[in-house]
Amino acid sequence: MMDSADMESGSYHDRLRTFPNMRAKPYTPLVFRILLGINVRVLFLLLLLSFGAIFYMGAKTSPIIVLVISICILSFFVAIYLMKWVLAKDEGPPEMVQIADAIRDGAEGFIRTQYGTISKMAMLLALVILCIYLFRSTTPQQEASGVGRTTTAYITVASFLLGALCSGFAGYVGMWVSVRANVRVSSAARRSSREALQIATRAGGLSALIVVGMAVIGIAVLYATFYVWLGVDTPGSMKVTDLPLLLVGYGFGASFVALFAQLGGGIYTKAADVGADLVGKVEQGIPEDDPRNPAVIADLVGDNVGDCAARGADLFESIAAEIISAMILGGTMAQRCKIEDPSGFILFPLVVHSFDLVVSSVGIFSIRGTRESGVLSPIEDPMAILQKGYSVTIVLAVLAFGLSTRWLLYVEQAPSAWFNFALCGLIGIITAYIFVWITKYYTDYKHEPVRTLALSSSTGHGTNIIAGVSLGLESTGLPVLVISAAIVSAYWLGQTAGLIDETGNPTGGLFGTAVATMGMLSTAAYILTMDMFGPIADNAGGIVEMSQQPESVREITDVLDAVGNTTKATTKGFAIGSAALASFLLFSAYMDEVSSFSREPFKQVDIAIPEVFVGGLLGAMLIFVFSAWACAAVGRTAQEVVNEVRRQFIERPGIMDYKEKPDYARCVAIVASASLREMIKPGALAIISPIVVGFAFRILGYYTGQPLLGAKVVAAFLMFATVSGILMALFLNTAGGAWDNAKKYIETGALGGKGSDAHKAAITGDTVGDPFKDTAGPSLHVLIKMLSTITLVMAPIFL
Amino acid sequence: MMDSADMESGSYHDRLRTFPNMRAKPYTPLVFRILLGINVRVLFLLLLLSFGAIFYMGAKTSPIIVLVISICILSFFVAIYLMKWVLAKDEGPPEMVQIADAIRDGAEGFIRTQYGTISKMAMLLALVILCIYLFRSTTPQQEASGVGRTTTAYITVASFLLGALCSGFAGYVGMWVSVRANVRVSSAARRSSREALQIATRAGGLSALIVVGMAVIGIAVLYATFYVWLGVDTPGSMKVTDLPLLLVGYGFGASFVALFAQLGGGIYTKAADVGADLVGKVEQGIPEDDPRNPAVIADLVGDNVGDCAARGADLFESIAAEIISAMILGGTMAQRCKIEDPSGFILFPLVVHSFDLVVSSVGIFSIRGTRESGVLSPIEDPMAILQKGYSVTIVLAVLAFGLSTRWLLYVEQAPSAWFNFALCGLIGIITAYIFVWITKYYTDYKHEPVRTLALSSSTGHGTNIIAGVSLGLESTGLPVLVISAAIVSAYWLGQTAGLIDETGNPTGGLFGTAVATMGMLSTAAYILTMDMFGPIADNAGGIVEMSQQPESVREITDVLDAVGNTTKATTKGFAIGSAALASFLLFSAYMDEVSSFSREPFKQVDIAIPEVFVGGLLGAMLIFVFSAWACAAVGRTAQEVVNEVRRQFIERPGIMDYKEKPDYARCVAIVASASLREMIKPGALAIISPIVVGFAFRILGYYTGQPLLGAKVVAAFLMFATVSGILMALFLNTAGGAWDNAKKYIETGALGGKGSDAHKAAITGDTVGDPFKDTAGPSLHVLIKMLSTITLVMAPIFL
Repeated sequence: MMDSADMESGSYHDRLRTFPNMRAKPYTPLVFRILLGINVRVLFLLLLLSFGAIFYMGAKTSPIIVLVISICILSFFVAIYLMKWVLAKDEGPPEMVQIADAIRDGAEGFIRTQYGTISKMAMLLALVILCIYLFRSTTPQQEASGVGRTTTAYITVASFLLGALCSGFAGYVGMWVSVRANVRVSSAARRSSREALQIATRAGGLSALIVVGMAVIGIAVLYATFYVWLGVDTPGSMKVTDLPLLLVGYGFGASFVALFAQLGGGIYTKAADVGADLVGKVEQGIPEDDPRNPAVIADLVGDNVGDCAARGADLFESIAAEIISAMILGGTMAQRCKIEDPSGFILFPLVVHSFDLVVSSVGIFSIRGTRESGVLSPIEDPMAILQKGYSVTIVLAVLAFGLSTRWLLYVEQAPSAWFNFALCGLIGIITAYIFVWITKYYTDYKHEPVRTLALSSSTGHGTNIIAGVSLGLESTGLPVLVISAAIVSAYWLGQTAGLIDETGNPTGGLFGTAVATMGMLSTAAYILTMDMFGPIADNAGGIVEMSQQPESVREITDVLDAVGNTTKATTKGFAIGSAALASFLLFSAYMDEVSSFSREPFKQVDIAIPEVFVGGLLGAMLIFVFSAWACAAVGRTAQEVVNEVRRQFIERPGIMDYKEKPDYARCVAIVASASLREMIKPGALAIISPIVVGFAFRILGYYTGQPLLGAKVVAAFLMFATVSGILMALFLNTAGGAWDNAKKYIETGALGGKGSDAHKAAITGDTVGDPFKDTAGPSLHVLIKMLSTITLVMAPIFL
Repeated sequence: MMDSADMESGSYHDRLRTFPNMRAKPYTPLVFRILLGINVRVLFLLLLLSFGAIFYMGAKTSPIIVLVISICILSFFVAIYLMKWVLAKDEGPPEMVQIADAIRDGAEGFIRTQYGTISKMAMLLALVILCIYLFRSTTPQQEASGVGRTTTAYITVASFLLGALCSGFAGYVGMWVSVRANVRVSSAARRSSREALQIATRAGGLSALIVVGMAVIGIAVLYATFYVWLGVDTPGSMKVTDLPLLLVGYGFGASFVALFAQLGGGIYTKAADVGADLVGKVEQGIPEDDPRNPAVIADLVGDNVGDCAARGADLFESIAAEIISAMILGGTMAQRCKIEDPSGFILFPLVVHSFDLVVSSVGIFSIRGTRESGVLSPIEDPMAILQKGYSVTIVLAVLAFGLSTRWLLYVEQAPSAWFNFALCGLIGIITAYIFVWITKYYTDYKHEPVRTLALSSSTGHGTNIIAGVSLGLESTGLPVLVISAAIVSAYWLGQTAGLIDETGNPTGGLFGTAVATMGMLSTAAYILTMDMFGPIADNAGGIVEMSQQPESVREITDVLDAVGNTTKATTKGFAIGSAALASFLLFSAYMDEVSSFSREPFKQVDIAIPEVFVGGLLGAMLIFVFSAWACAAVGRTAQEVVNEVRRQFIERPGIMDYKEKPDYARCVAIVASASLREMIKPGALAIISPIVVGFAFRILGYYTGQPLLGAKVVAAFLMFATVSGILMALFLNTAGGAWDNAKKYIETGALGGKGSDAHKAAITGDTVGDPFKDTAGPSLHVLIKMLSTITLVMAPIFL
C-alpha cells in the first residue's frame, strides 16, 4: 500500500497541480481570450439579442425553422440545467480533487494549443477557398438569381468558418464537461453505484445535447440568414431548392476541425496509454492507473482530449454533413418533382434532429438515481439501465419519425410517399440496431470470436496478433452486407414512393437513402450520451485508483468502465454506418454540383476509363497511407513516452516504493507536443490529396481533350476512398475492441488469468489495438466525410 | 552437438523415410495413375505424334504459330538438358539423402492428395460451366459463324480443363524439381558456393522454362486447334478476331488451380513454419531447422509445396491470363481499325513470351560455375551474380521486344504505331524495375524503413507490430503511384499511336496498356528462376543444418538463403504489378463480352447507381474477408502444430538431449490434413461470391426493371475487388517481408542481437508476417486474376 502521509504531503500535490512545462507557454487562442473576457451580463444580453434576431429571421423564413430553433434553445436550457446539476455534486476528498485538477490542466492546456494550431490552419484554408471562389465561374442558377461570384465566395468562407468554430466548440464542450464530471463520478462511487452512473450519464447527456443542438441550430440559422439576405423565393432571385448547396462550407468546416481534433486527440490518448502500459504493466508489473507510473496523468488526460473532445467534434460533423446532404437531395428532388412547397422536404432533416433532442432528453432523464438502493444492495448491471433508457428513446424516436414524415413529406401528387419514407427511416433505425449487435458479437467476450482470440493468446504473441487481424478483417463482412441491404432497400422504397419527375421517371430513390441515414442518426444524442459516458467512467476509475480508494469503490468504477468500453465500441459501428450512407448522399450532391457548374449533364462515373480507374486506385491508396501515418504517429510518440518513463524509473529508483514522486508533467508535455506535431502529416495528406488529384487530372484532361476529366477522377477517388475507408475503419475498430476484450476476458481468470503467458500475449494485442481503434479507426470516419465535403467545396478547381 | 552415431543408426533413418501417416492413405489421383502407367517409349511416340499434329495445325494457321511452338519445344529440350545436368550432381552423404527423402515423400504425398481434391472440384465446376453454356444465349457473331451453343459449351469446358491440367502440371514440376535440387545444392555447398548457386539457378531455370513454355504452348495449341476445327476466316465462319474470346476458359482453369494450390500450399508452409518457430525458437530456444524440432521436416516440406509448387502455378496463370487478355484486346482493336491481317496483333503476346524463353535461357546460362574459385576464395555476393544475369536478360528482352513490335505491329495505316507500342513495352519493363526497387527499399535492412521497424522492436512486441503494420500500409503508396503513371502513360501512347476506328476516333489505348503488361512480363522466366531459387536455397540450408554440417558449409547456404528471401519479395512486387495491369485488361474484355451477349452497348460502369456502388462495396469486402480467412487458417493450423510439438517435448523429454527421436511424420500429417481442410473455405468464397452477387442482382434488376444490372454490379464488384486486392496484397507482402528482415537485421548483432528483448519482439513480428507474405498476400495475386477470368466465363448467368 502507498504511504498515505506521503500522498497527502503538500509538496507532492503542489507539484501535481503545477505542470511547469505546460504552463511555461500559457498560450490562449484569440477566440477564447475574447470569450473569456466577456462579462456574464453582457453575454446574457448578447444572447437575448441574437435569439431575437434568430426568431425574426426564422419567422420570415418558415414556421418550421422557428420550431427547430425553439427546440434547440430549449435543449440548451436543459443542458444548462444538467450542467448545474452535475456541478452541484461534490468533488470528493482533496486527494481526488488534486488529481482531477492535474487532469483538467493537462486537458485544457492541450486543447487550447491544439485549437490554436487548428484555427491557424483553418484561416489559411479559408483564404484559399476565398481565392478559388473569387475566380470560379458561376452557375446558371446563380446568374438567374443574381447571386454573384463575390457573394458566393463570402457565403462559402463564412459557412466554413462558422462550421469550424461550432465544431471546435462542440469538441471543447465535450472535454470541459468530462474533466469536471470525472471527479464527481469518482466521489459518488464512494456512496452508490447508481448515483455514479447517473452523474456520468447526465454529464454525457449535457455534452450530447449541446453537440447535436449546435449542429442543428447552426444550420438552421445559416439557412434562415441566407434566406432573408438573398431574398430567396422572391421573383428574380434564388430558388429555395438551390439554397442548401450554399451550406456545404459549414459541413467542410466542421469536418476539417473534426479531422484534426480526432487525429491530435487520438494520437495523444493512445500514445500515452501505450507508453504507460508498455513500461508500467509489461515491464514493471504495476497495475493500470497506478500513481507510480509517470505517464498515468497523461493517460487520463488522453481520455478527455481523445475520446470526449474528438468524439464530440466527430459526431457534430456527422450530423452536420448528414443534414446538409439530405437538404441538398430534398431540394433537388422537390424541384424535379415540381412540388409546390419544397420547404418540407428541405427542412425535414432539421426537424428530425431537433426531435432527436427531445426524445434523447427523455431517455437521459429516464435514468434515475434511486438512492435507496444504496451501497449495500448488489451492484446493478449498468448496461441494462443504459439499454432501458435507449429502448425508451428508440420507441419515442420511431413515433416522432413517423409523425415528422406524415407532417413534412406528405404531398398531394403521391399521397403514400410519406409512408414509404417512414419505412426508409425504420430501415435506418433497424440498421443501426443490427450494427450495434454485430459490433457486440465481434468485440464482446460473451461470444465466440473474442473467446477464440483469447485462446490463440495461449500459443503466444504471434498467434494472438494473427488471430486478431483475421478477426478484424472478417468482421467487415456482416456490416457490409447489412449496409448494402439498407442502401438498396431504402433506395427502392424511395423510388417506388410515387414521386415522378418532369420526364415521368420515378425519382426519390436517393432521398429514400437519405431518410434511412436520418433514421440511423435519429437517436444520435442518446448514442453520444452513452459514448461520452465511457471516457468519464474510465477517468473516474483512474482517479479512484490513483487516490487509493477502498476495493468496493474500485469495483463500482470498474463495472462502469467495462460498460463504457462496450458503448464506445458500438458508437463506432454506428458512426461508420452513418458515414457510409452519408458519403453516398454527398457523392450525389457532388455530381449535381459538377453538372450545374459545368452546364453539362454529369450523371455517370465510368470506371472503365483508365484515368478514372487510376483515380479510384489513388483514393483507396489514400486510406491505406493515412491509416499508416496515423498508426505510425502513435507508435513514434509512444516510444518517446516509453523512453521517458524508463528514464524516470532508472533515475528515480524510489518511485517504486512511493519514496519519490514521478514527474507527471514531463510526460504530459512530451505527449502533447508530439501529438500536435504528428497530427499534421496525415491531416495534410487527407486535405491536399483530393485537391492535387483533381487538379492534376483536370490539366491532363485539358491536354488530352477529355472534358470534365478532373471531376470524374475525383468522383472515383471519392468512391473508392469511401469504400476502402469503411472497410478499413471497421477492421481497425473491431480488431482493436476484440483485442481489448480478449485481454479483459483473460483477466477474469480464463486461460491462466492475470500474469500468465496468455495474458502477456493478450496485452500485446491490446497495445496493437489501441491506435487501431482509437486513432486510425475514428480518424477514418471523419476522413470519409471530410473527403465528401472537401470535394463539394473544392469542385470549382476540378472543372 | 548431436550424437552422430545415433544420427547414422539405421532405425532412426528408416523411421524418417517411412511417414506411416502419409503412407496409410496411398491415394494417387487418376491423372497421375495414368501418367505413371505409360511406358516411356510409348510416351515418346505419343509426343512425336502430337508434335506432328501441332505443326500441321500450326502450318494451317499462321507461320507465327509455328515459330512460337518451335521455340517452346526447343525450350523444353533446354529444360531436359538442365534436368539431366542437375540430376547428374551428387546427392551428398547418406545423412543428407535421408533428410531429402523425407522431405520429398512429404511434399509429393501432400501435392498428390491436394491435386486429388482440386481435380474433383475442377470436375464439378466443369459440369457447372457446361450446364450454364448449354442454356446460354448465343451472340450475333456466333450465329453468323455457325458456332452453336453446344460447340461453345464444349470449347469452354475443354479449355477450362486443359488450363487446369497445365496449371497443375506446372505446379507439380516446380515441386518435383525443387525436392530433387535441394539436396544437390546442400551437397555442392560442401565444395563451392559458386557451384551451389549454379545448381539452384539451373534447377529454378528448369522449372521456369517449363512453366512459361507450357503457358505459351498451351494457348498456341488451343488457338491453332480452334482455328483449324472451326474453319476460322473462311467465308461464313468465325472471324479470327473473335477467336481469342474462346480461350478464356483456359485462363479460368489455370487460375482456379493456382488459387487452391496457393492457398493450400501457403497454409501448409506457414502453419508449419509458425508452429515450428513458436515452440522451437521462442519456447525452447533451439535454432531454426534444428533436428530436435518435431515440426522441422514439415517446415522444409512447406517450402516446396508452398513456394515452389504454388508459385509455379501462380506465374503460369499470370502469363496465361495476360496472354489471353492481350489477344482479346488485340483482336478487338484490329477489327475496329479494319486492319487487313489482324494475326500480328493477336499473336503478338505469344511471340513476346516465346522470346522470353530464349532471352531468359541465355540469362540462366550466363551464370557459370567457375569451380576454380573453390571453397578457399571469399564467398562472392550471389545477388550480384543473379543481378548480372538479370541485366543480360533485360537487355536482350528490350531488343527482342523492339524487334517483335516492328515485325508484328507495323501497319500501313499508322506507320509509327509500332514505335509507340515499343515505348509502351519499355514503360512496362521500367515499371517492373521500379517495383523491384520499391520492394527492396521497404523490405531490405540496408534502408531506413526496416531499420526504424527494428528500432521499434526495442520498446516491445506491441510497438514492433504497430510499426510493421504502418510500414506495410504506407508501402502501398509508391507502387500505386507508379502503376497509375504506367497505366495512364501507356494508354496515352497507345491512343496516340495513330490507329483510328471506323468512326475516326483514336483507339489502341487499351492495347497500349496491354503491351506495357507484356513488357513487364517479358523477362518472366528469368524472374521465376530467381524466385524458385529462394525455396531451393532455403531447403538446402535446412538439410545442411539438420545433417550437422560444418560451419563453413552453413555459411554458404545462409548467404544463398538470404538472397533467396530478397528475390522472393521482389517477385511478389512483380506479380502484383502485372496482376493490376492484367486485371484492367480483362475488365475491358469482360465489358466487350457482355455487350456482345446482350446485343447492347455496354461501355460504362456507373458507380453512382446504388446497386453498382453496393457491388463495389461487396467486392472490396471479399478481399478483406478472404484475407481474414487465409490468415486465420494459418493461425488455426499453426496452433495444432504448436500443441503437437509441445506434447512431443513433454512426452519425450529425451528429444532435447538427442536421446529420443521426434515424430516428424505426425507433424507432417497434421499440417497436411489441416491445410487441405482449411483451403476450402476461402477458395470457395472467392469462387462463389462473384457468381452469387451477379446472379442476385440480375434477379433484382429483372424485378426493378433495370436491364444488365447483374453485369454492371459484377463489373463494379470486380473493379473494387481488384483495387482493394492490389493494396491489401502490397500491404501484406511488404509488412511480412519487412518484419522478416527486421529480425534478420537484429540477428546481425544490431540492438542487442540474438536473444535480446528486441530480438524476441522481432520474432513476434516475423511470425505475424509469415501468413501475411506467404499465404494471404500471394493468394490475393491469384484471386485478383481468378476474379477477372471467372466473370468472363460466368458472364452468361449475369445477363
